[in-house]
Amino acid sequence: MIAKLITEIKKKNAPIVVGLDPQLGFLPKKLMKAAVKEYGESLEAVAAAVFDFNKAIIDATYDLIPAVKPQIAMYEQFGVSGLVAFHETVEYAKSKGLIVIGDIKRGDIGSTSGAYAIGHIGTVQVGNKNFCPFDEDMVTVNPYLGSDGVKPFIDVCNQNDRGIFVLVKTSNPSSGEFQDQKVDGRPLYELVGEKVAEWGESSMDGDYSNVGAVVGATYPEQGRILRKLMPKTYILVPGYGAQGGQGKDLVDFFNEDGLGAIVNSSRGIIAAHTKSEYAKFGEEHFAEASRQAVEDMLADIRGALEAK
Amino acid sequence: MIAKLITEIKKKNAPIVVGLDPQLGFLPKKLMKAAVKEYGESLEAVAAAVFDFNKAIIDATYDLIPAVKPQIAMYEQFGVSGLVAFHETVEYAKSKGLIVIGDIKRGDIGSTSGAYAIGHIGTVQVGNKNFCPFDEDMVTVNPYLGSDGVKPFIDVCNQNDRGIFVLVKTSNPSSGEFQDQKVDGRPLYELVGEKVAEWGESSMDGDYSNVGAVVGATYPEQGRILRKLMPKTYILVPGYGAQGGQGKDLVDFFNEDGLGAIVNSSRGIIAAHTKSEYAKFGEEHFAEASRQAVEDMLADIRGALEAK
Repeated sequence: MIAKLITEIKKKNAPIVVGLDPQLGFLPKKLMKAAVKEYGESLEAVAAAVFDFNKAIIDATYDLIPAVKPQIAMYEQFGVSGLVAFHETVEYAKSKGLIVIGDIKRGDIGSTSGAYAIGHIGTVQVGNKNFCPFDEDMVTVNPYLGSDGVKPFIDVCNQNDRGIFVLVKTSNPSSGEFQDQKVDGRPLYELVGEKVAEWGESSMDGDYSNVGAVVGATYPEQGRILRKLMPKTYILVPGYGAQGGQGKDLVDFFNEDGLGAIVNSSRGIIAAHTKSEYAKFGEEHFAEASRQAVEDMLADIRGALEAK
Repeated sequence: MIAKLITEIKKKNAPIVVGLDPQLGFLPKKLMKAAVKEYGESLEAVAAAVFDFNKAIIDATYDLIPAVKPQIAMYEQFGVSGLVAFHETVEYAKSKGLIVIGDIKRGDIGSTSGAYAIGHIGTVQVGNKNFCPFDEDMVTVNPYLGSDGVKPFIDVCNQNDRGIFVLVKTSNPSSGEFQDQKVDGRPLYELVGEKVAEWGESSMDGDYSNVGAVVGATYPEQGRILRKLMPKTYILVPGYGAQGGQGKDLVDFFNEDGLGAIVNSSRGIIAAHTKSEYAKFGEEHFAEASRQAVEDMLADIRGALEAK
């Protein structure tokens, strides 16, 4: 799957992913109003508005980008209805040729991680029929439980040509509380990074592994070190834009081949219409605002990579 | 919420929780057959069979136990249909007076953890109406992202009188890979345990905090140390039975007041009908087998606590 992602990144000259993380606070009023008219004041209405919102963003940006990353929490907060919208979003994005990275950050003991892997990137057999329940292409995984919480995901990647990104150094302010603790003089995230590289050896797909890593844009120095520690590991880089990262901070997340990283922006793209620099679009034209924000992000990152 | 859980534990003299972790491999054939007859070979059929299974287990055991712990991965593996069964299970268990611990192990950056907290133990407002999407009483939380990934859960606990259990030392064989790494001479799980105790101070509910911890039954020595390090923290103890833990190994997870721990068994109870010692019940009487397994577990743990 990582080979397929790389092909799409090269074709579109776009090492970026759009985070589909809808929030009630910035869903255009028109979409909510239409959904409430159809479904009443209900979680079904929110879910319908969320899907309509995502569909418009996808329609406005799919030719520019290789992938989208729906954050499942933003759907799960609306219960079963929200997860219907999540699933519809995955299906719609795939129908437009996009690779879907489910940002699920799951991780548990072995048999339980196996169940998550089946639900998100695997297959369930019922009688004589097979089903792919959520059917993402790639998912994010939490490493706190160690190898036997991660390997069931890798097994499913190898069976179904899918991929994962394991949390190594996250983008949030308190990520250092445990991740930066020194173990024999080195931060824990380096140990996790080494494990990710080791796990990845069993799932190579061309020059890179289907087992990637998550390293936040907000920690460029750590990104530089981890890049060298995990040379065949693709890095998913959240934290661009709204969380503070910029193109020039991100060049060291990439390898010399110009590959090795894919940068995510969520609110910076999908809530562009709420920001002063895109105010001219107005809420009505939120999807066009998101397209402009993608073009601006691409110019920033392409420029930074060329200047490297 | 922890005060309510303690009241129920005392009333039933039962510091245990039954893990509702259904798997296709041990769902009674009769239930699957009936569901397939109604819904065809489909994920809807599996979900219907899963709910019927859980309902029978709850009906057979609810008078003996204070709480159930559905592991959401076992539902998520069946997609949206599975999550419908999860939600129905939560609602049914609560209708029988049980406290529901959603074993979700979520954790993310602040705003995203906030969304998970809303979806599982919080409230969403849509227009003039309020909804509690999954409506568990307590959930498990992953600490890898540090304080700002955990605090949004605590905020919702404080608003809605709910509770969480934060992963400290998990029950699986490879849990030591990162959790046991030495930081200034002490294992990482002790640092996490100290943080859990600190976080818990802002959410006291009687003698204990609504912020609990998860420590695996398979690591009794670590349980003993963590018990002393987090005196006001309730410990959820998975790994009893199928994973190898026994009552005599667990006494040091409890405080001198006889409280402070609640022991989970999943497959040991709900798949009792597949084990040789309960073979006399037969698959037909799986629920009676689960009741007998609960009684045996209670005898083991009560005996161990009395002998302490």
